[in-house]
Amino acid sequence: MRIIRFLDPQNQVHYGIPNDTGLATELTGNTLTELIPNTRQIQISRLLAPIIPTNVYCIGLNYADHAAETGAKTPEHPVVFMKPTSTINHPDATITIPACCTHGPEVDFEAELAVIIGQKCKDVSASYALKYVFAYTIANDISARKWQKHAGGGQWIRGKSFDGFCPLGPVLVTADTIPNPQDLWIRSTLNGQIMQDSHTSNMIFSVAHLISFLSQDTTLLPGTVILTGTPAGVGMARTPPRFLQPNDSIEIAIENIGSLTNSIIAA
Amino acid sequence: MRIIRFLDPQNQVHYGIPNDTGLATELTGNTLTELIPNTRQIQISRLLAPIIPTNVYCIGLNYADHAAETGAKTPEHPVVFMKPTSTINHPDATITIPACCTHGPEVDFEAELAVIIGQKCKDVSASYALKYVFAYTIANDISARKWQKHAGGGQWIRGKSFDGFCPLGPVLVTADTIPNPQDLWIRSTLNGQIMQDSHTSNMIFSVAHLISFLSQDTTLLPGTVILTGTPAGVGMARTPPRFLQPNDSIEIAIENIGSLTNSIIAA
Repeated sequence: MRIIRFLDPQNQVHYGIPNDTGLATELTGNTLTELIPNTRQIQISRLLAPIIPTNVYCIGLNYADHAAETGAKTPEHPVVFMKPTSTINHPDATITIPACCTHGPEVDFEAELAVIIGQKCKDVSASYALKYVFAYTIANDISARKWQKHAGGGQWIRGKSFDGFCPLGPVLVTADTIPNPQDLWIRSTLNGQIMQDSHTSNMIFSVAHLISFLSQDTTLLPGTVILTGTPAGVGMARTPPRFLQPNDSIEIAIENIGSLTNSIIAA
Repeated sequence: MRIIRFLDPQNQVHYGIPNDTGLATELTGNTLTELIPNTRQIQISRLLAPIIPTNVYCIGLNYADHAAETGAKTPEHPVVFMKPTSTINHPDATITIPACCTHGPEVDFEAELAVIIGQKCKDVSASYALKYVFAYTIANDISARKWQKHAGGGQWIRGKSFDGFCPLGPVLVTADTIPNPQDLWIRSTLNGQIMQDSHTSNMIFSVAHLISFLSQDTTLLPGTVILTGTPAGVGMARTPPRFLQPNDSIEIAIENIGSLTNSIIAA
């Protein structure tokens, strides 16, 4: 099933199954377990991030080519950081260059497969981990590189946590539709030019491994979102570097999911 | 006002103002803005963490003596990391040594003043920041040092995010009762022995500065909890190191707030 969250023309929030005519079949029930379609067709006025996460875990350096382009070693364990839930941004919405990032270009894009945990779980083996996935979607792990690298004493969070820095969506694709999350191409495109072009088979730690690792002695709450890392081609690693600037349009696309597009505006 | 969250003998959750007889005057209304006392007196069966946070920000190395004991430089900006909300633990509850930390002692305590943001805010000046604080409480930023330092590619989150690693409480002391959060003694005591003994005037970055810094181009949601860093005396920096072990009792006390005690058990 393909699920969107959206506003109708009266700005009411709904879940629904989109069709090709600008309408969606309404879904009601528990978001993460049993959304049930009814007969109501609702006009889609504006797409929303398909979920408000309970926690957002992110994995750094999870594609070997990206680890290499940043000069980092291939990690022995997943590199875990987080984004606050206040970073969540919507499909087709703008990403504002933060005022504190205007001293020089530093705001970067990162195409990522996002995993939505549906059921509370803990100490999950990798072989069983995918059973706890409710759905997959697309994320853009927007990153202010100077704040990330130089201003946080080595901790990345401050550069990853500005408002709007986690566009998510547009659609939740339920796990039954994606039996193998390691078999998807993933791309980012900036103003029509492909910047990242990879495949989830290139992840160092698979989605199943990440869930197992994160759940070790740790409860993953329903609504936990895991950003699974980004492949090579980010702006900071290019020659010359290509950071996001006002009027840019950045699109992240993943096979069988769709594409997530955001435009950049000045502070 | 001093506010607790607790279970009654029927395991119903309430907010209340505790008195000295094991009862609390019930409070109802919006937790972060207008809790109103009524005439009902309810028996306190078990204390709970006084809030379920929306996001938990933590500040590293915010007391110069602690930065020095870890061998880190005094930071130029606040060092920001996070804990997932799944870490929240209750007063008088047990802290379990995670199974993946039993290869050798590594689980440590950190006494911290916790700040509860009551109103959504963004781009707050330091001079106005304390107006957004709803209350203060006590936190213990439990940390698995090997995971924190060696297993996360330099990112601290994995070592800070095991279940039960954020005891919080027992009481929310509203901001009107603590006009100056930089004028409080703070201590940790392990099995009756004082381990950390400092004063919030020793913070490198004040509570007001931290709120201003974290809110820069970033929305702090109501229910955001900020752990403001720990003073010198943590277990890893002692000679010899003193990590937490089963049957230990660790108490964090802060002036005008109270004390938060947890016992340690094996996995």
